Amino acid sequence: MVEFLTTGDILMEDKRISKAVIARLPRYYRYLGEISEEGIERISSKELSVRMKVTASQIRQDLNNFGGFGQQGYGYNVKYLYNEIGKILGIDRQHNLIVIGAGNLGNALTNYTNFEKRGFVIKAMFDVKPQLIGKEIRKVKIYHLDTLEDYISKHQIQIAVLSIPKNEAIAVAKRLVNAGIKAILNFAHTDLEVPEDVIVENVHLSDFLMKLSYRVSSLTENQ
Amino acid sequence: MVEFLTTGDILMEDKRISKAVIARLPRYYRYLGEISEEGIERISSKELSVRMKVTASQIRQDLNNFGGFGQQGYGYNVKYLYNEIGKILGIDRQHNLIVIGAGNLGNALTNYTNFEKRGFVIKAMFDVKPQLIGKEIRKVKIYHLDTLEDYISKHQIQIAVLSIPKNEAIAVAKRLVNAGIKAILNFAHTDLEVPEDVIVENVHLSDFLMKLSYRVSSLTENQ
Repeated sequence: MVEFLTTGDILMEDKRISKAVIARLPRYYRYLGEISEEGIERISSKELSVRMKVTASQIRQDLNNFGGFGQQGYGYNVKYLYNEIGKILGIDRQHNLIVIGAGNLGNALTNYTNFEKRGFVIKAMFDVKPQLIGKEIRKVKIYHLDTLEDYISKHQIQIAVLSIPKNEAIAVAKRLVNAGIKAILNFAHTDLEVPEDVIVENVHLSDFLMKLSYRVSSLTENQ
Repeated sequence: MVEFLTTGDILMEDKRISKAVIARLPRYYRYLGEISEEGIERISSKELSVRMKVTASQIRQDLNNFGGFGQQGYGYNVKYLYNEIGKILGIDRQHNLIVIGAGNLGNALTNYTNFEKRGFVIKAMFDVKPQLIGKEIRKVKIYHLDTLEDYISKHQIQIAVLSIPKNEAIAVAKRLVNAGIKAILNFAHTDLEVPEDVIVENVHLSDFLMKLSYRVSSLTENQ
């Protein structure tokens, strides 16, 4: 347990950082990246708050969790803050991923080169359809699901992307966890049951669409 | 303004329903669908809370927003509640969508038949690459982006899916809004600026991955 933090001391060990703060970090990272690309070298929490549409006090509070990178009267050094948040998020190193399910969505994700730009490298895909095994998507080979556990342990994979139908997702997630996977990006339209030390981020696309349809329907009702 | 609600009275006009409740409805809908598929006809808020891993009191509170569908000692009628939430979400009718960007992600989404099962029908895709114009993905035609406004107004489209690079996303979003689009599912890795009556649901895939990498990195640090 880290009891006393000094400025700049980071903090991945600090278990007290709330999930809500962690959840906001990728957005800070994205904005700081854009601001840096614009050639801006420093920014006040006020200016950042206008861009990000959150309060300046929220920004100060959030960034104080990490020792605080700002200086009174100077603001934040954009590039420094960007890099530090990158380190906190663990994207200063490469992460190897596997994709389970080589259907349309799995293919799209493997073809999505933005992941690689941020250090997320897809190493292998898995499926059960005989006609897909051995094929390659952007040089990423499709293996049979039977070899899943072997591959994970041999290549020390920690992150898996699940893009298979919901009926199979829960059983496959169990296999992933047993094989040592620590993080799952879940596109299957169901919630997964995993132990506490495994993190799941759900991307339930239909749920997003339902929220949109709610809005559109309520607009229509009120016309 | 609806001042007094009676049981069963719904409520799309009721502006007081919080966004947080709306955001949870698709998940209720998904669970109730699964429960109904299992042949279960009624369920108590307690049983539902165990499945959904939220408190029974949260469930009662949420569903009370809509007049409350439960009866003391009986619980909820699964099929009825499922249908009513479906109506509230506006998925008891067909919604026509367009997809902007016929790259890998756009193709994957158009090929994703689950949307159609829930009444979200993709009517057209748009792109600027000459070699793509006129092609069809699962019978959905790709049009040139120049014809976007015409198409939207002619076919009264209200929902658009944005799967284009972030640099073009903001300008295209403006065009969508000006043409009458009321809801955007945004896959571009940037936040959009839209008027208050337009809803945007962001699916920032890289942000999800960063949250996973944070977790994986902090696990490694603590080993």
